[in-house]
Amino acid sequence: MIQPAPLLPSTLTIQTFETHDIRFPTSLELDGSDAMNPDPDYSAAYVILGDGEYEGHGFAFTIGRGNDIQTAAIRALEPYVLGRDVSDLGAIYREMAHDSQLRWLGPEKGVMHMAISAVVNALWDLRAKREGKPLWRVLSEMSPEEIVDLVDFRYLTDELTPEEALEILRRAEPGRQERIAQALERGYPAYTTSPGWLGYDDDKLRRLCVQAIQDGFSQIKLKVGADLDDDIRRMRIAREVCGDGFPIAIDANQRWDTTTAVRWVDALAPYQPWWVEEPTSPDDVLGHATIARAIAPIPVATGEHVQNRVVFKQLLQARAISYLQLDAARVAGVNENIAILLLAAKFGIPVCPHAGGVGLCELVQHLSFFDFVAVSGSMQDRVIEYVDHLHEHFADPVVIDHGRYRAPTAPGFSATMHPESIAAYSYPDGPVWRSS
Amino acid sequence: MIQPAPLLPSTLTIQTFETHDIRFPTSLELDGSDAMNPDPDYSAAYVILGDGEYEGHGFAFTIGRGNDIQTAAIRALEPYVLGRDVSDLGAIYREMAHDSQLRWLGPEKGVMHMAISAVVNALWDLRAKREGKPLWRVLSEMSPEEIVDLVDFRYLTDELTPEEALEILRRAEPGRQERIAQALERGYPAYTTSPGWLGYDDDKLRRLCVQAIQDGFSQIKLKVGADLDDDIRRMRIAREVCGDGFPIAIDANQRWDTTTAVRWVDALAPYQPWWVEEPTSPDDVLGHATIARAIAPIPVATGEHVQNRVVFKQLLQARAISYLQLDAARVAGVNENIAILLLAAKFGIPVCPHAGGVGLCELVQHLSFFDFVAVSGSMQDRVIEYVDHLHEHFADPVVIDHGRYRAPTAPGFSATMHPESIAAYSYPDGPVWRSS
Repeated sequence: MIQPAPLLPSTLTIQTFETHDIRFPTSLELDGSDAMNPDPDYSAAYVILGDGEYEGHGFAFTIGRGNDIQTAAIRALEPYVLGRDVSDLGAIYREMAHDSQLRWLGPEKGVMHMAISAVVNALWDLRAKREGKPLWRVLSEMSPEEIVDLVDFRYLTDELTPEEALEILRRAEPGRQERIAQALERGYPAYTTSPGWLGYDDDKLRRLCVQAIQDGFSQIKLKVGADLDDDIRRMRIAREVCGDGFPIAIDANQRWDTTTAVRWVDALAPYQPWWVEEPTSPDDVLGHATIARAIAPIPVATGEHVQNRVVFKQLLQARAISYLQLDAARVAGVNENIAILLLAAKFGIPVCPHAGGVGLCELVQHLSFFDFVAVSGSMQDRVIEYVDHLHEHFADPVVIDHGRYRAPTAPGFSATMHPESIAAYSYPDGPVWRSS
Repeated sequence: MIQPAPLLPSTLTIQTFETHDIRFPTSLELDGSDAMNPDPDYSAAYVILGDGEYEGHGFAFTIGRGNDIQTAAIRALEPYVLGRDVSDLGAIYREMAHDSQLRWLGPEKGVMHMAISAVVNALWDLRAKREGKPLWRVLSEMSPEEIVDLVDFRYLTDELTPEEALEILRRAEPGRQERIAQALERGYPAYTTSPGWLGYDDDKLRRLCVQAIQDGFSQIKLKVGADLDDDIRRMRIAREVCGDGFPIAIDANQRWDTTTAVRWVDALAPYQPWWVEEPTSPDDVLGHATIARAIAPIPVATGEHVQNRVVFKQLLQARAISYLQLDAARVAGVNENIAILLLAAKFGIPVCPHAGGVGLCELVQHLSFFDFVAVSGSMQDRVIEYVDHLHEHFADPVVIDHGRYRAPTAPGFSATMHPESIAAYSYPDGPVWRSS
């Protein structure tokens, strides 16, 4: 009797681990400017794992200064990965997250947690490349039991036990194949933040709103929070251009205290904000709940700076958010994001991922397609953020087609940056920075 | 007319900034072992600022691996400090905490926030040395307006405005001089964690309980959370030795989920725990509130891993804690801790600082004496943790006298480590590590 060859040859272990401090001088163009982040230099603390045959790429996204610290934190994880097989991914993730000494630096938050994210995501990129499939399909073809095994339920069991998670996933099992076909055929709805950066003048805002609608986007987003009169004027312009009822979200990037948030949103309410994003500190669960109650029925959204699954759990428990905006590289990568998708499904809250930055669009699309196929089973009320920055540096960039993400088909997590881009934008010695 | 010389000569700016990665091999003795941290190597990511005449010392406390990352994060703050006068302390603090690019790495949490803590505390050490006074007296002699100016009220104003803070401080102004005299005469009550480390056997536990009472401590604390039968046995032994009614706190070091915490504490309730410390994730405000309601009247305490003032605000709002255990070096140093003392005073919750580790006893005593003199005005129900580790490495170590901290009198923040200790325990090249 002939045994089929195993999918993951266990002799292939991680043999190389290299990091790069990559920074793009985006502050020169005011791309990405908002009320809290006036001059970001979009950056990636980047890691490449190699098993001799395949490479796994991953990164933490930062906005400039401190990207060296973030890169050093990733490098500190090398001993957890070298010599290991990528099929031990679940164990490697848990060892990094629960290392008692490293844990003290968080726990499970900030620089050290984002470093774990980069490594976990690189392991998934490697694993998906070995399997010859895009990550979302690798995940979508795992059994509910295998998926549950990837999750760390610590601190979640008052709201989500492994048994409940299994039940959610089993409920979504029927129809997986149809939804994979739908995903490939129709893609996933996107919204664009490109018109709404604070640094843009009114004419550019107007022009980009028109463009967004022409491009087929079903929603746009404006940055707000620096000056109320400016925000009223910009929101009025956007509403005029986009027409009544077109979804226009607003994003304050944590600029407000609770009481200011309520006052400010009240002033913008006549222009029908679709949601209010990051109204205050991402740590302030109770503040978000207070704001949500005060501005209802205008919904609150947050997540890009939410540090881990424990804070997401509470935002859901407190009925503080109507949209959950997970980030691919702030929590501990794919594994913790599966926990977050499961929590959102349990509470019936749609996940609309944060993207933009460097490569975040490339990553989150996999999570949303997986959510659609195997977790929530729905695209209803769900959109993925899209920002048209820096995709040219990626080997498998996102494709937006009539305002929708096209499902990726290349093997991996779409995380691989071109070697030429890595070399050119390496900080401080790459040619782009040497000449500036 | 002759002008008085200014107290802080403005010509003295910070000219030097050096960092050290210092680690003590405490794991060899199981000192400091608890349910989450079985083998800590107590460490300090250490910074020394120099103005040509005085040195300011500060540090972040870690438990080993990652202390290099923490040290690198401190070094990244050098540009915010060099060339500045220490009298700009408030401004320097705000610039570091609100740097939009560095903020992305938190915000206000984890490695980058602890780095700010080390630098802020070093600036205070320098300032107090220049003034020739211990830090607690420098703070205790500032006007309410000056103190309020040190605080960052962002994200606090729904519970604490500058006006309310001023009112709290003004209410405590009468009697400051008497309380300074009392502090100098009577010190501040301490409790000891030394008997209760998980790695110690029953005989050592019994012996150290007897010792604690003989030494005059008014409270002890046991580590719990690894094994319930062990905890019941150890708690019974401690209760037998200490007698009925003697305060014995228990500390789970985040080991439990919410439901486990309630079950475990119920099993230990017959032995009358004085408080239950860190029952679950420090991020889980709602979980702490649930536990507090379920185990009442046994009180909940937490704080050593609480990342910033925003989470403390919520723990107080949710009535989740009965004791607030601030840490000197996890939040952004003295300035953020003043905000936390003010929040606690507003809610009438006693502050019982976390200490131990490396130099944390040395630091927190200043905050508690300041709280007594100028904020809460009370020592009622308040104790400072004391652990008898590593004090010999400090130039101005704490003095415990009949179970009470003696008020420090040497100028500064008691943060200065002996140069010989810095050299010996520097990692990885100090002689202690080279020979191990």
